[in-house]
Amino acid sequence: MSTAWTSRYALRTKGMKSSAIRELLKLTQKPEVISFAGGLPAPDVFPTQRFQEACRKVLEQNASQALQYGASEGYEPLREMVARHIARYGIKAKVENVLITSGSQQALDLIGKLLINPGDRVLVEAPTYLGALQAFNVYGPDYVSVPSDEDGLRTDLLEDRLRSGPKFMYVLPNFQNPGGTTLSEGRRHQLVLLADKYGIPIIEDDPYGQLRYEGEHLPPLVVIDRENLRRDDGYSIGNVLYLSTFSKTLAPGLRLGWIVAPPEVIAKLVQLKQGADLHTSTFTQIVAYEVAKDNFLDEHVKLIRRVYRERRDAMLSALKDFFPPEVTWTHPQGGLFLWVTLPEGTDASKLFEAALKENVAFVSGECFYANNGPESRRHMRLNFSYVPPDKIREGIRRLSLAVKHQLEELHAAAR
Amino acid sequence: MSTAWTSRYALRTKGMKSSAIRELLKLTQKPEVISFAGGLPAPDVFPTQRFQEACRKVLEQNASQALQYGASEGYEPLREMVARHIARYGIKAKVENVLITSGSQQALDLIGKLLINPGDRVLVEAPTYLGALQAFNVYGPDYVSVPSDEDGLRTDLLEDRLRSGPKFMYVLPNFQNPGGTTLSEGRRHQLVLLADKYGIPIIEDDPYGQLRYEGEHLPPLVVIDRENLRRDDGYSIGNVLYLSTFSKTLAPGLRLGWIVAPPEVIAKLVQLKQGADLHTSTFTQIVAYEVAKDNFLDEHVKLIRRVYRERRDAMLSALKDFFPPEVTWTHPQGGLFLWVTLPEGTDASKLFEAALKENVAFVSGECFYANNGPESRRHMRLNFSYVPPDKIREGIRRLSLAVKHQLEELHAAAR
Repeated sequence: MSTAWTSRYALRTKGMKSSAIRELLKLTQKPEVISFAGGLPAPDVFPTQRFQEACRKVLEQNASQALQYGASEGYEPLREMVARHIARYGIKAKVENVLITSGSQQALDLIGKLLINPGDRVLVEAPTYLGALQAFNVYGPDYVSVPSDEDGLRTDLLEDRLRSGPKFMYVLPNFQNPGGTTLSEGRRHQLVLLADKYGIPIIEDDPYGQLRYEGEHLPPLVVIDRENLRRDDGYSIGNVLYLSTFSKTLAPGLRLGWIVAPPEVIAKLVQLKQGADLHTSTFTQIVAYEVAKDNFLDEHVKLIRRVYRERRDAMLSALKDFFPPEVTWTHPQGGLFLWVTLPEGTDASKLFEAALKENVAFVSGECFYANNGPESRRHMRLNFSYVPPDKIREGIRRLSLAVKHQLEELHAAAR
Repeated sequence: MSTAWTSRYALRTKGMKSSAIRELLKLTQKPEVISFAGGLPAPDVFPTQRFQEACRKVLEQNASQALQYGASEGYEPLREMVARHIARYGIKAKVENVLITSGSQQALDLIGKLLINPGDRVLVEAPTYLGALQAFNVYGPDYVSVPSDEDGLRTDLLEDRLRSGPKFMYVLPNFQNPGGTTLSEGRRHQLVLLADKYGIPIIEDDPYGQLRYEGEHLPPLVVIDRENLRRDDGYSIGNVLYLSTFSKTLAPGLRLGWIVAPPEVIAKLVQLKQGADLHTSTFTQIVAYEVAKDNFLDEHVKLIRRVYRERRDAMLSALKDFFPPEVTWTHPQGGLFLWVTLPEGTDASKLFEAALKENVAFVSGECFYANNGPESRRHMRLNFSYVPPDKIREGIRRLSLAVKHQLEELHAAAR
């Protein structure tokens, strides 16, 4: 008999390609490479001391709970903390609206499992978060893409796409990954209104919302939806599922995210989560609660904002100093990434190879598009959270050499 | 527009019922109830002190790795440790054969995702592990059940079912959940031979293998498959995927399990895992490695065996002392559970309600059958790991009252 496993795989895995980012990241891990490729928080801002104290306390006082099986919904004090915490953004949630997930990535997987039948349309931004595409892909959706500009998803192009009847739309309104753009307040209202008009649920993914370095916080879609469209029936969440995470504010190694949803949706997601991993680690949940409580998280986020703002500014000024004028980039008001647009005809994946020779790395834009086109090949995503400011400047200088070289070749070919 | 979420759920979630065990467990958590319902390790055997030291060390020496994103495959030293550890059971694996999962439950979900197309047949034992059914169900299989007896799955009934072309078979050879039975050595060989003859892969789930309280360890199916059927091509694993976990030997609150598989299968599972949760918590992986290393785990497992053997013996002798002679039960050589068979016509879910009135709980047998029948209603699963010996005796005494009462009713109805 045969041990050819390939013939046994389910249809849903057929189109699955090895993740571009995975493979590329391996190349970028050499110590001499300055990498803008990952989406890693700076380890300098991990609150290690506080974790020490939390682990000691949890294991001294609560080990028999922290090391034991727990509820699929998550550790109740942590769910309550999330509900309290998001209230400041106007999101009215009670503990029964909150499901703790094994990172935001699991939230995306559970939502794909809950909502996508093979062939269902899913509306996404172009570009959008690669991890969401990876999570959804196994459930067999067809994607409908809406272009973005500096103000986020272009709502003027939305209605036409909504008529095609997508099962849901997936949006990152704040400091989008990869674009670094923020959906303007006017567009937020348009988006919520149109979604309501066509009865299309919104998945609002907000991993970076707290990391704003300038400007005013804008209302989440989930709040606009409730305030403008629902009667105030206490705490119910309407048409929007809201996702966030501790990965960017505490530590990604914990793998802790959450979904805020109406209780009926939470009930269904809890069952799916139970089948997927029973529950998220009790230990990391209780430790995270101990670390975050007594307003520590709020204070800590101020430090992160200070550090990342400095790095963002270092990258923006280096880009201005070193990059040729035909190249443009977004000016993120927060988050971890900015998005570089190269002149038409440039091939960012070729540029990636040239950049690696200069010992600098980024992620080339194609993988962030659900529906690839020539437009997708002229972008770079640059992360500014991981590398210290002086190295950011040096990395951008190296990258500019590769960019200039490719532009010269392009000009030569055009002649 | 409507916020009726129910109309939006994917087809795969339609048949999803609220988990019987979940709902029942809520009833059994009152302090006056002696619960044999869960599958919880005894918190008394958690190595809390060792966790204290490990957390301190990891956060002092390695925080920037432990709190950061990690590889989807898992923490390499932990994967190496797993490979070394299972070598003692004859399983030849290298690091590239090992994928760390968020508990064994995630291993089952990833395997369902990888292998099951809607309508595919999946062969399971009757009874089998409820969590596996929950993980597989969302991928839409049809189940083919093979009855078990005191020696495990009845291989004499297997060939007929294999001809129906199942996509894979799922088997728990050691101290099965819920049956407490162990597949005999002769049947292991038959099973592997028949699987090979019909080209049907085996998923070997072995969460309890190390917790043997009497008798000799029997060779895993993955070893029989390789030794008897494959040429020795170094480290490759053939027709069997092998699953295990740290939940029963270290602590379930960590959510750490693993899959041992051929590298080609691992590569595919890694991609699915990346979409599902990026990776398992780096922190829990590194802490678990620090706890388990230097042979601590081996020493610790000896303690667990001692404690659980005493509890098993307490339950067996209480059953003998209190239960009426028409009732039979398995004699588990290890693990966490035993399986009680009531006379024909008994309804274990009615018995559950009566038992709760006596302040004792168990899980009634139906939920462990992929294909329910009258046979499924006359069983109880009893856990003996969680409750101390004196309480086990008192719990079995209480349970015997409910059992005797139901048997009397049954006799009265028959007259």
